[in-house]
Parts: sequence; structure tokens; C-alpha cells
Amino acid sequence: MTTINVGLLGLGTVGSGVAKIMIEEADLLSQKLGHNLRLAKVCVRNLSSRRNFSPPTEILTTEPGEVVGQPDIPVVVELMGGLEPARTLVLQALSAGQHVVTANKALLAVHGREIFQKAAETGREIKFEAAVAGAIPVIRILKEGLTANRIQSVFGILNGTTNHILTRMTKDAMTFQAALAEAQQSGYAEADPTNDVEGFDAAHKLVLLTALSYGVLPQVSDFHVEGVTRLEPEDFTAAAEFGYVIKLLAVSTLDQADGRLEIRLHPTMLPAKSLMAGVNGVMNAVMIRGHASGDIFLSGAGAGMMPTASAVMGDIIETSRDLRAGSAPQVPALGWKNLQSWSVKPQQEIRLSYFLRFTVIDKPGVLSAISGILGRHDISIAQAIQKSFEPARGGVTLIILTHKAREMDLQAALAEAEKLDALTAPTRLIRVENQI
Amino acid sequence: MTTINVGLLGLGTVGSGVAKIMIEEADLLSQKLGHNLRLAKVCVRNLSSRRNFSPPTEILTTEPGEVVGQPDIPVVVELMGGLEPARTLVLQALSAGQHVVTANKALLAVHGREIFQKAAETGREIKFEAAVAGAIPVIRILKEGLTANRIQSVFGILNGTTNHILTRMTKDAMTFQAALAEAQQSGYAEADPTNDVEGFDAAHKLVLLTALSYGVLPQVSDFHVEGVTRLEPEDFTAAAEFGYVIKLLAVSTLDQADGRLEIRLHPTMLPAKSLMAGVNGVMNAVMIRGHASGDIFLSGAGAGMMPTASAVMGDIIETSRDLRAGSAPQVPALGWKNLQSWSVKPQQEIRLSYFLRFTVIDKPGVLSAISGILGRHDISIAQAIQKSFEPARGGVTLIILTHKAREMDLQAALAEAEKLDALTAPTRLIRVENQI
Repeated sequence: MTTINVGLLGLGTVGSGVAKIMIEEADLLSQKLGHNLRLAKVCVRNLSSRRNFSPPTEILTTEPGEVVGQPDIPVVVELMGGLEPARTLVLQALSAGQHVVTANKALLAVHGREIFQKAAETGREIKFEAAVAGAIPVIRILKEGLTANRIQSVFGILNGTTNHILTRMTKDAMTFQAALAEAQQSGYAEADPTNDVEGFDAAHKLVLLTALSYGVLPQVSDFHVEGVTRLEPEDFTAAAEFGYVIKLLAVSTLDQADGRLEIRLHPTMLPAKSLMAGVNGVMNAVMIRGHASGDIFLSGAGAGMMPTASAVMGDIIETSRDLRAGSAPQVPALGWKNLQSWSVKPQQEIRLSYFLRFTVIDKPGVLSAISGILGRHDISIAQAIQKSFEPARGGVTLIILTHKAREMDLQAALAEAEKLDALTAPTRLIRVENQI
Repeated sequence: MTTINVGLLGLGTVGSGVAKIMIEEADLLSQKLGHNLRLAKVCVRNLSSRRNFSPPTEILTTEPGEVVGQPDIPVVVELMGGLEPARTLVLQALSAGQHVVTANKALLAVHGREIFQKAAETGREIKFEAAVAGAIPVIRILKEGLTANRIQSVFGILNGTTNHILTRMTKDAMTFQAALAEAQQSGYAEADPTNDVEGFDAAHKLVLLTALSYGVLPQVSDFHVEGVTRLEPEDFTAAAEFGYVIKLLAVSTLDQADGRLEIRLHPTMLPAKSLMAGVNGVMNAVMIRGHASGDIFLSGAGAGMMPTASAVMGDIIETSRDLRAGSAPQVPALGWKNLQSWSVKPQQEIRLSYFLRFTVIDKPGVLSAISGILGRHDISIAQAIQKSFEPARGGVTLIILTHKAREMDLQAALAEAEKLDALTAPTRLIRVENQI
């Protein structure tokens, strides 16, 4: 039976999971595949670290060169994370004719152009199923199952940490700070949670989903990224009253009218009855809207040792099958990147419905003043509710749900409303997605 | 640019969708794939039928031999449905060295052994993504993305017609007959709905999911298949009171303790908060539980011209990529069928929770008599509710939710209870699935 060697860079949580599967399930894999997968070498930073799973010490090394550039190791799996030395090692591996599997979303979102270019030049594969939505095989589906579709939209809950926090805020009326502290204690959030709670992690994944859906590789700086740190319990209560749930939703959608892409990541109110609204805790989800397929909804574990390792293994296995079949890479990661050069629509030009929460002095004429300002900026009100006095905010709450309006107009109206003496606290804005 | 010819057998709803995509999206596909896909020949029963999409008349034929066995047509797409002549033509195509794509679940569930065998002998592919859950790429995920997993369970809502009917019965308190009549009027159910409402269509799909998950190909006669025709509005009301929703659920699960497969298809109460319970209308869904991946939930259109065509196209495209790469079939449909020969556990030995709805005379001692019978058969009661008098049924309703019990014991207890004079109507039994 043919044996295909695999080299691993990094033996953290996901790396340990991959090593565990490759070693413990070796027989099962051989029987399923008809060839052996052998974990030939694992490069670690520190030989004596404690790990979730420990491979035999004789295959451990601290020298990346024992994996990268080794002619008897055709598949290199990069699970170190971070930009460097990951970038350099991945480029070296591709140059040396090795295929690369990675779970490193930041690396691909930031240096994707250079890396995909190198893979194309050298005719090698760069696979990254585990980089987006953990165990959910969304990359494979976009690259293969839905190839015949013109993708119209991709929606996603792409960060488990924030989804866990939002779930606690929704179900248990916790504040953001309390929910974050709890997530940190239970290991769902890191000590420095910035990358998760400010949306950067999800934004990197959105870049990759956009690349696979539309064949362009935007930069995170090209679109609106807004985290969950400013959400308040009152937002969740109000959302529930209107039949919505708040999620940190990643959106990449093609405006059929003007041929531009709308890419955005921000807290979003979704209909409570939608499948996406039912995705709770650390789960991730993606919904792909194809012109032929209709909506395909996928949900599963977005992180964790074994779920992420499962996705990495899928890529390793596919690469090994290609190698064994002796075929060239069949599905270039961004094979049709030259097909269309969509431009990204500035957030200011995007049209959405908005949830607005004003805190105002309880006196006649305030609602009229605010609705007058909205009307002058071409913003039509769908629903308005005035709530009782809230001592903590020094005023009454006025909630307005708008029809679709241009973000530019909405921002101008809010700026004008902020000047009203009647406003006693900053106005809260949450975007609404009804088409899900 | 290389051109790969594709021949089509059948130009019904799905066939028209495939022809439409191949012709209308030819440029997009060429750009994405780097090769052309050409619809070379379409075999139809009647040249002058009215169709959803009409390909150029010069590629139409009524002679299957103009597709099957043609050396310049390497890919044959069987979309005729039914067992014959589909079986003969598929076997002929494989024997002639052609790869086959089909959406025909009945064909594969009934003649799968013969067809997969022929494909293995001739080294040709038989792909069938569209045969299960329409547009949802569940076959691909089981065959590829989750290869490194030991599959523990597969759950599915696999028939859109019955799910539409159950959704109407749940949300609008309709009777089965009324919901079926409405589904027939709106085209969601056929004039003879037996295949759908008795569960046979879903059972065929369950056979295929089981085959891909565990490498065995059971027969429909090996497991319990129960349709939705006997469900009553009262079942749905009671389910809601207990926090459940009723779905026609397909289950294939490996009993880790005794190494046997539990395969079953019947109306099932699911927790109302589960994602599966939120799958409404004609949508399908599948949940795959892998030892590493955890639960992967997928939902999408289970039928329809374009969604099913999208899945067929995925298979055509994959086959064409393999052909172009010159590689042998990489993933035999049932490549590890010799790995394990699981036996299927008789339904009588399966342990489940049960929802029981008795209609009894309103007199002292009845509840005691029934609970006594259950107790003697080793069935423990989790909850019991006695409802008010129902004139239509000539008694009061007594609902009992059991803890897990053996089906054999449950059936024996029910048989004994039926002998009680106090029962005024047949007892209703619905199985409960809490692990979803």
C-alpha cells in the first residue's frame, strides 16, 4: 500500500487534534483511502511543552527545515497561526513543490494574494477548509458542490466566542462585560479578546468566503467591521419585542443592480424564526444563496481541537488522494479570480433597514422632531415604540425601526438628531437583515 | 480549451434544469473550470413534449444508444427516474466505460449493489449527490470532508412533501387529509402520494446515507419505515405542550455498545428548540454526527428544478475535472464497503423514549391500570397529563411520555393495554428523539 508522508508545523490545540487522528485512526484511514497517511515529522517550538496529545518523541523537531523543503514529505500542514514565520514557511514549502494545508485565516486574509499566486506558479495546492467555520465544510461546498451556481449572497456567524457572548446576552440578559468575563473563565474567550470581540477574526474569514464566492480577495480595510462591545442588554430586549435576535453577522452579497459587492460585518438583527437565529453558543453557521441551489444553510462547531482537526484532515486526505492519483491540482483555490473584478460598495452607499434606540427627555414634540429629521433624510419609519422612563439613562427610550434607507442618509440624520437637546444618551444603531 | 461532452437521459423537471444551466451558464462554467462542458445529446421519450427549458432540437433524440455507449460522450447523466430502463442503461454506460451521474434514489437503493459493483469493475464513477436532499451537498461531505471521522449518527428530514404537510399540521392545525389536498393543489405532492407520505422516498435516501456513513447498503425491508398518514391534529397540539415538534425523521446511528446499526424512519418528536425542528415547508435537512467533527447540520431545498440541477451539475463538474486531470476515480462511492459488516438491529430491540396518547373512559383507576401495565413491562413514565373530555373520541385523553424503553416491551405493554375496556379509541404512539 502506498504511503504518503505528512509534515506538521505546530502542535497546539488543532495540531494535537490532527496528530491524534493521524496516529489513532491510521488503520481506519488506510482502509477508507486505500493508502497510508503517515505523520512523518512535527515541528514544535518547544520539545518539552505539555500537550493535549503527544506524538512519539522521535518525530518531533524544533527545526522547520525538517518539514519544509523535505522531498519525501509532499504535504505540509501549517498550524502555527500568526503571520510570521507562517508566511515564510508556507511560501518556502510551495516553492519546494510541497502542497500546503493551513487553518490560518489571518495569514490568508492578509497575505493571500502572495500565497495563492505562489501556489498557482508552482502548481501546488493550498487548502484551508479549517480556516473558516471550523468543522463545517463550507470551503469545499463553495469550491465544488456549488460550482454551477452564480453565488448571490453568503451570510455567516463566523466567530464562536462572540456568538457565545451574544447567546448569553440574549438568553440571560447579561451585560457584555459579564458575558465576556464568563467566556474567558470557561475558556471560550482569550485573555486579550480584541481579535474576537472587535470582529477581526470573523472579518478574516469573511475575506476568504468572499474570495471563494466571487473570485476576488478584498482587504479587511475595504469593508465595515464592527464588533459586539457596545451592545447593551436593552438592545436584546428590544430585539426580542420586534421578533429579532442579535447576531454578529458576516455578509457578502452581490448587488445584482449595480454589480458591486456589499461586504460587511456587524451586529445584526435577524428574524427570530430563521435558522441562523437558532445558532447558539460557540456554534458557527454559514448560509450560501446560489442562483440555482437556493439557500444552503450549514451549522457546526466553529472551533475546538477535534472539530477543527476534522476539517484539516479532510484537506490532508483530499491532497493525498490527488497525489496518489497523480493528478494536477484540480480546483485552484481562486481559479476564477480573473473572471470578474467586482468593486466593493462603500458602506455609505449600502441600503439597509435600521433599528434605532434613542434615549430622550419625556416631553411633547420629541418624537415629532426625530421623525421629522428622519423624514427629511429620506428615511421612512416602519415601526416606532416609546417605552417607559429609564432612570439609569435619564430618559425614556424611543425605538424606531426604519424601512430600507441609505447608510449615508441614516448617518446624516443621526448626526442631526444628536444635536437635539432632548437626547440624553448616545443613540444606538443596529442594522437589520430580513432576507435570511 | 478542452471540451468534455455530456449526454443526458431524460428531460423532465431536473433534466430541464441541468440543460438550462449547461447551456445558459456555459461561459461562466468554462471560466471557472478552465475547460468546456458541452451538452452533446439529450435522450427524451417524446420529441414534442412541452418542457421547462428546450435545448436545441438537433441535440434531441429518442434513441438511448445515441448517448449510452458513445465513445465521444464520457459522462452520462441519468435523470429518467424509475427502475427500468434506467438500471439497464446505467449498467450499459458503465460497461462501455462512461462515467454516470444520477439523481435516482430508488434505482440506487434497490439496485445499488449491482450498480456500484459494475462501477468498481469498470473503474468508472457513479455519482449521486442529487439523489439525497436535493441541493444540499451531503454526499460530498460524507465522502470527502468528513472522511477522517467515525460517523456516529446521521439524522435527516429527507422528504419535502411530507415536511410541507407536517409544517401545515403544526402551524395551522390542519388534518393530514386537508394538508395533503392542499399540497397536491400547490404541486408539492403528487396525485398518488404514496411514495412520499408512506415514507418510501425518504427510506431510499436513508439507505444511501447509511451506505456512505457506514459502508453498508441495507435494504428498505431491513428497517422500520412508517409514514405520516396516521398523525392527527391532537398529536401536534400535545407535542407543542411538551416542547416538541413532529417531523418525519430518518435516523441511522451506530450503537457503540453492541456495534449494530439502528436504522429507522418514522414520525418523531424533536425538541422544538433544535435546528432540525426549525426546518419547515419543503426544505430538507441532514445532521451528521462525527467523532471528531461533532454535529454538522445542513439544510436546503430538497427538490425542485434548479436546486436539484445544481447538485447534478456539481457531480458533472467533478467528473469532468477528474477526466481532464486524467486521474482514476478518487473516491469509490462505497470504497470501504468491506471494512465492516454492521448488522442492523431489529426495531424490537431499539430503545427509545415514547409519546403515548390514550383515549380512555373518564373513571377512577384507569391511569393506575395503564401505568401498572407499563411498569410491569419495564417502562418508566417521565411525564403524564390527563386532558379534558373529547366528545369526538368518546373519552378523555391521557398523554404519557416514557423514559427510554425497549420497543419490544413497549409494544407488548400497548397490546395489553388495548384489552382494557376503558380504552375508547386506538392508542397513538410517536417516538421521541432528544439527542438532536
